[in-house]
Amino acid sequence: MTPGKKGILERLDAGEVVIGDGGFVFALEKRGYVKAGPWTPEAAAEHPEAVRQLHREFLRAGANVMQTFTFYASDDKLENRGNKVTFTGAQINEAACDLAREVANEGDALVAGGVCQTPSYLSCKSETEVKGILKKQLDVFIKKNVDFLIAEYFEHVEEAVWAVEVLKETGKPVAASMCIGPDGDMHGVSPGECAVRLVKAGAQIVGVNCHFDPMTCVKTVKMMKEGVEKAGLKAHYMVQPLAYHTPDCNCQGFIDLPEFPFGLEPRILSRWDMHKYAREAFNAGIRFIGGCCGFEPYHIRAVAEELGPERGFLPAASEKHGNWGAGLEMHTKPWVRARARRDYWENLKPASGRPQCPSMSAPDGWGVTKGHTDLMQQKEATSQDQLKQLFDRSKSH
Amino acid sequence: MTPGKKGILERLDAGEVVIGDGGFVFALEKRGYVKAGPWTPEAAAEHPEAVRQLHREFLRAGANVMQTFTFYASDDKLENRGNKVTFTGAQINEAACDLAREVANEGDALVAGGVCQTPSYLSCKSETEVKGILKKQLDVFIKKNVDFLIAEYFEHVEEAVWAVEVLKETGKPVAASMCIGPDGDMHGVSPGECAVRLVKAGAQIVGVNCHFDPMTCVKTVKMMKEGVEKAGLKAHYMVQPLAYHTPDCNCQGFIDLPEFPFGLEPRILSRWDMHKYAREAFNAGIRFIGGCCGFEPYHIRAVAEELGPERGFLPAASEKHGNWGAGLEMHTKPWVRARARRDYWENLKPASGRPQCPSMSAPDGWGVTKGHTDLMQQKEATSQDQLKQLFDRSKSH
Amino acid sequence: MTPGKKGILERLDAGEVVIGDGGFVFALEKRGYVKAGPWTPEAAAEHPEAVRQLHREFLRAGANVMQTFTFYASDDKLENRGNKVTFTGAQINEAACDLAREVANEGDALVAGGVCQTPSYLSCKSETEVKGILKKQLDVFIKKNVDFLIAEYFEHVEEAVWAVEVLKETGKPVAASMCIGPDGDMHGVSPGECAVRLVKAGAQIVGVNCHFDPMTCVKTVKMMKEGVEKAGLKAHYMVQPLAYHTPDCNCQGFIDLPEFPFGLEPRILSRWDMHKYAREAFNAGIRFIGGCCGFEPYHIRAVAEELGPERGFLPAASEKHGNWGAGLEMHTKPWVRARARRDYWENLKPASGRPQCPSMSAPDGWGVTKGHTDLMQQKEATSQDQLKQLFDRSKSH
Amino acid sequence: MTPGKKGILERLDAGEVVIGDGGFVFALEKRGYVKAGPWTPEAAAEHPEAVRQLHREFLRAGANVMQTFTFYASDDKLENRGNKVTFTGAQINEAACDLAREVANEGDALVAGGVCQTPSYLSCKSETEVKGILKKQLDVFIKKNVDFLIAEYFEHVEEAVWAVEVLKETGKPVAASMCIGPDGDMHGVSPGECAVRLVKAGAQIVGVNCHFDPMTCVKTVKMMKEGVEKAGLKAHYMVQPLAYHTPDCNCQGFIDLPEFPFGLEPRILSRWDMHKYAREAFNAGIRFIGGCCGFEPYHIRAVAEELGPERGFLPAASEKHGNWGAGLEMHTKPWVRARARRDYWENLKPASGRPQCPSMSAPDGWGVTKGHTDLMQQKEATSQDQLKQLFDRSKSH
Repeated sequence: MTPGKKGILERLDAGEVVIGDGGFVFALEKRGYVKAGPWTPEAAAEHPEAVRQLHREFLRAGANVMQTFTFYASDDKLENRGNKVTFTGAQINEAACDLAREVANEGDALVAGGVCQTPSYLSCKSETEVKGILKKQLDVFIKKNVDFLIAEYFEHVEEAVWAVEVLKETGKPVAASMCIGPDGDMHGVSPGECAVRLVKAGAQIVGVNCHFDPMTCVKTVKMMKEGVEKAGLKAHYMVQPLAYHTPDCNCQGFIDLPEFPFGLEPRILSRWDMHKYAREAFNAGIRFIGGCCGFEPYHIRAVAEELGPERGFLPAASEKHGNWGAGLEMHTKPWVRARARRDYWENLKPASGRPQCPSMSAPDGWGVTKGHTDLMQQKEATSQDQLKQLFDRSKSH
Repeated sequence: MTPGKKGILERLDAGEVVIGDGGFVFALEKRGYVKAGPWTPEAAAEHPEAVRQLHREFLRAGANVMQTFTFYASDDKLENRGNKVTFTGAQINEAACDLAREVANEGDALVAGGVCQTPSYLSCKSETEVKGILKKQLDVFIKKNVDFLIAEYFEHVEEAVWAVEVLKETGKPVAASMCIGPDGDMHGVSPGECAVRLVKAGAQIVGVNCHFDPMTCVKTVKMMKEGVEKAGLKAHYMVQPLAYHTPDCNCQGFIDLPEFPFGLEPRILSRWDMHKYAREAFNAGIRFIGGCCGFEPYHIRAVAEELGPERGFLPAASEKHGNWGAGLEMHTKPWVRARARRDYWENLKPASGRPQCPSMSAPDGWGVTKGHTDLMQQKEATSQDQLKQLFDRSKSH
Repeated sequence: MTPGKKGILERLDAGEVVIGDGGFVFALEKRGYVKAGPWTPEAAAEHPEAVRQLHREFLRAGANVMQTFTFYASDDKLENRGNKVTFTGAQINEAACDLAREVANEGDALVAGGVCQTPSYLSCKSETEVKGILKKQLDVFIKKNVDFLIAEYFEHVEEAVWAVEVLKETGKPVAASMCIGPDGDMHGVSPGECAVRLVKAGAQIVGVNCHFDPMTCVKTVKMMKEGVEKAGLKAHYMVQPLAYHTPDCNCQGFIDLPEFPFGLEPRILSRWDMHKYAREAFNAGIRFIGGCCGFEPYHIRAVAEELGPERGFLPAASEKHGNWGAGLEMHTKPWVRARARRDYWENLKPASGRPQCPSMSAPDGWGVTKGHTDLMQQKEATSQDQLKQLFDRSKSH
Repeated sequence: MTPGKKGILERLDAGEVVIGDGGFVFALEKRGYVKAGPWTPEAAAEHPEAVRQLHREFLRAGANVMQTFTFYASDDKLENRGNKVTFTGAQINEAACDLAREVANEGDALVAGGVCQTPSYLSCKSETEVKGILKKQLDVFIKKNVDFLIAEYFEHVEEAVWAVEVLKETGKPVAASMCIGPDGDMHGVSPGECAVRLVKAGAQIVGVNCHFDPMTCVKTVKMMKEGVEKAGLKAHYMVQPLAYHTPDCNCQGFIDLPEFPFGLEPRILSRWDMHKYAREAFNAGIRFIGGCCGFEPYHIRAVAEELGPERGFLPAASEKHGNWGAGLEMHTKPWVRARARRDYWENLKPASGRPQCPSMSAPDGWGVTKGHTDLMQQKEATSQDQLKQLFDRSKSH
């Protein structure tokens, strides 16, 4: 445990709000350091100044978890993405740990070592092989003495359970986060059941990240919580959603939207959407609240500002932010000054400026993997029926 | 002139494409270092690492102009924004010059010292006073030996001419950029006439920045070019637009949209929109092509990639970017792989994911300044008539 | 039975497609003969030429059921709507029977006497009283010798069952149609269970009408069919949906949309939407296929044209309609001629021409009746979560 | 002149508001009596009851002009539309006159004989030939003694002038109405200049009909009025627009929209839009106010209700219509009752219910006729620039 800092479980046990950071691969893709498609984190070793700066911005914005930039940094992933290899997997993982620790030490933040789903699992490798792959990253995390561990972005509860089992061997606190929605994992295991299995495997914190918008993710974690409580178990809960609106997703989330990953701009959430998200998550009993793809530092700041009363302080970056638009109070134009108030921003329905674009998409390819060609043929429908089918798919099977 | 580098005029005279950077105040506001409302650049002195990193990202993305982060850094602006003063105006301007120079030296980029419109002009101070204010920033630029000067973000051609006159005294090349659209400046002076006056005052490069979307800005610069050529004059042309769709703006641009500045997310342009913009600007004969508010490094990279054939090289950040989505080629899902092609992204009309939001806004407050209360009453109309009035206002006056 | 015509059950037993007419109150409201709000059918007596003409248009369009224009013509409804009374309930019901019969005799159509839900039931009158009210209309239908009876637009299965019991006493074939969606009746009785109770009460045809768009209604009838079959019962099925898109409805249907009843125009279905509806209904095993509010004669014609191959003939009004836009083949402009083909119209996503309007509404008042004030506060949300809540309300109670 | 009725000019000279009817071809197409594509009015002879009923509905709605249903009833048009001929052109024109007269006599309405543009003109026939074609319809109008004449739906002012010259020979009052927008006729003659030529040719009433939405048409008539007044001439003004929103039209109007003619439903104006239109037209000094394609009787009723105070009475059909939604006052649900007020309907922005549809279209084929292939390539753009180009096309040529 980092001397002088309370650990993750102490914080959560004490009822504190812990704020996570945002998604590094999307943010660094826009800054020119991560390649969309492979999404691998070699920038930790190649361009440490860029990664360090992003950590620092999230810290300033209120995050008190610095997650190591080790997404898709398992050896099998780094290999099959076919990039020219300048750095080994171990070097990348070590560099990521050092950067997270360096910035965490600039504030009251903890370092979380992160692992995620592996190509080995998808290509049907054995439990032993998958665990072996994860173990290699874990060795670095132990050497670098991270504060706790997160198994995140798992689509299948079976692999997530394996990951928790490996992580538990270290004795560190373990969080487990799946990239699923209310329909559950890719084999149709419900969120409640997923959570129960993860807790039984030893995870002290469970939740979801990525793939869906904030309200959908909060709803999913609520279902997890209900499952855990119904099973007579106990856990803490976490949520790290997309910063994109996804009302039109199917069970695999935003990957299947036609706009993924290069046309998602019109879906980006505003800071005010984040206020609603933070409140909703808090009200649902979730205490580890952060972000994933699409989150920029100002989104995390909005979460921290909404929960300022509960936390008892505002983040450093609020020095550069007026409460609910208060920075506009001195504007020269009266109608812009008139926007310096909460109800203006809370109720604004922003225009898209794209008069030839629709408001919703028909997800690509969905159904195909499960043979729903009938649904495919209805892709164009806009009726309630189609929307229900979008949402209710897994229930009817 | 920086030893070993061609100056801005040499480059433009030789027909080279010069790529500008993006808007710093909006990008740094999202990162937690600039306050929306005041929009002042004290971060240059307070948080140099954040400003340096943003310069570096634009350099990597292909920019070969590093504009000093001195927007709204005139003494009168810094004062009337009422922030607690830790640094003097001179310190901020000096720090900004040092950061721009440091990063420019990492590549083939020039440093441009920037000034913009002053509160002194808006409060009807005399020509002498306004010029005195600008002169103070200029003293720093000379001391720090910037490569050339840009007078940008002027709403009134009268003040822009004064600025050019002051800048010309230094002997450095001078660019002048107004934040106007096709309807001209706030007194109704047409883009063509504005450009003629600026060129006559000594500007070697003229154009527009901010306030409107790329296609509107290119159109406005075209009108400037026609005016200049019709007057038998010569100039180079520049354009640095918003990265937001603004089909519904009036003559004051995005300031008057209800979404300004905290609800603009759905309007953000994609990288593919930037390809179209870069091509359009190039075809219009503009050779200094950059961005303003809303531009992130990946937007500038898209400009540099579109004009790669003309420039003969790709930017450093293209190492992390497949051509027209090529990074998706190895994706596991066939329907995502199918997006790894130009015509997919070129023709995509992205959904907004906001089914309760409209596509266009009725700008706040427009007309009021010119007494068009009748138009105000028609704010809700959605007919062609209203749209024409939006666009044709200045013509009917 | 009308001499020389096959009865409704003979037709359905033989596997024939029976096409219903459209909704009279909405169509005649637009023509100036019905008052929105009361929605009562006194025009049958006051302006018989208008009602006769509408019957005739539906007949020409392919309908082979002429439903008597007796919606809301029970005495209790006529009274509490407070209109000045020129005609008695009996006179209105008789006039309606005569008009339906007159036009039915112009073609191969049957006359269906229709009753619907009563204010008496809503104000908690007894079974005896409610049945007494319905009996008065029924006396007219027997006197005028209609071909069969329809109990339609019931929100509560209990009242629908009472209606069926009364209608059965006449010995005529009885159809029962509820205005419910997939969430079931206002007390949460599922569509399947509603259908079972109606069939057990003696209805030979069951289905839904009004309140939801076609695809939602077809889905609901499918659920009815599954319930009936699961219970080991047999029935024929009917569907008469709205001609409006209603993806954003709650369980009470379009009544609760903010646009009801005077701002529904942008939701009107095109003829091509009706082709999809007719095919979907046919594929679901429904053989009595018609329309309700919003249906104009051209909508019914589209149903009849889609099912032309199954029926073996086209309706009379197809003399004035080219197949899938074929009427445009001789247009002078090549790009309009290019629209004379099925795939053009089948795939067109029509623009609304309303750039300041959203694509979906938040239904008014929903939740209030069941005390969901928390949902009310979330009315503005556009996330998947909110949409699911919209749709899943009844399930969670 | 019809005995006991004031003529059209007497009414207009006295400052009265004259209300026109709606467009017959679109309304009767939906009812099954007119074929889209040919758009010819043989139903006047084939199905007189349907035409009579529509006349009667417009009369009830407040129209005091019954326009003969003789659109596209010139012999050359009837022939080249290739329908099987059961009735001669003379028979159709005579039947149409009889029907208009019969219904006009049921109220205080006048009969207007209408002619429109001819295929002969478009195929470059001579002035003599074109006038000969028009003369044949005119002979019927004289024989049937219509009250006045309307030359409507002309795209070229030259042909419209020829028509006025022919009509003037009868001695009847003559109105002339072109289907143009603010950009003027198909050869770029401005609305002001068109109006001047028509008045000089002898038209006592000038204006526009069809092709554009109400606000655009009113704007165009204003331009006509300015032209006429500037030329020192005098005239009365008329307007009969579409009942569709057309913000995205080019100079040829709704014909070039991809939705024409079978997918226009989402663009249909509500009754409340018509209130705004009627007021706007009245304020512009227009006193002959009616409708064209898309207008149903309830749209005309809304015009008559808005101008009730000026006219001093409400139309017959207002018996079946509460003022500004007042019919909802007794609804059982409190949130529906809450809609029984003017500001609710006046401010409602109706949702389309089509979440996968855009708000605006890119008109088909525009530019092609004038060789603007560059614009064609930009069809997908949604920037302000593109919209301006849409609207400003004719000006720049």
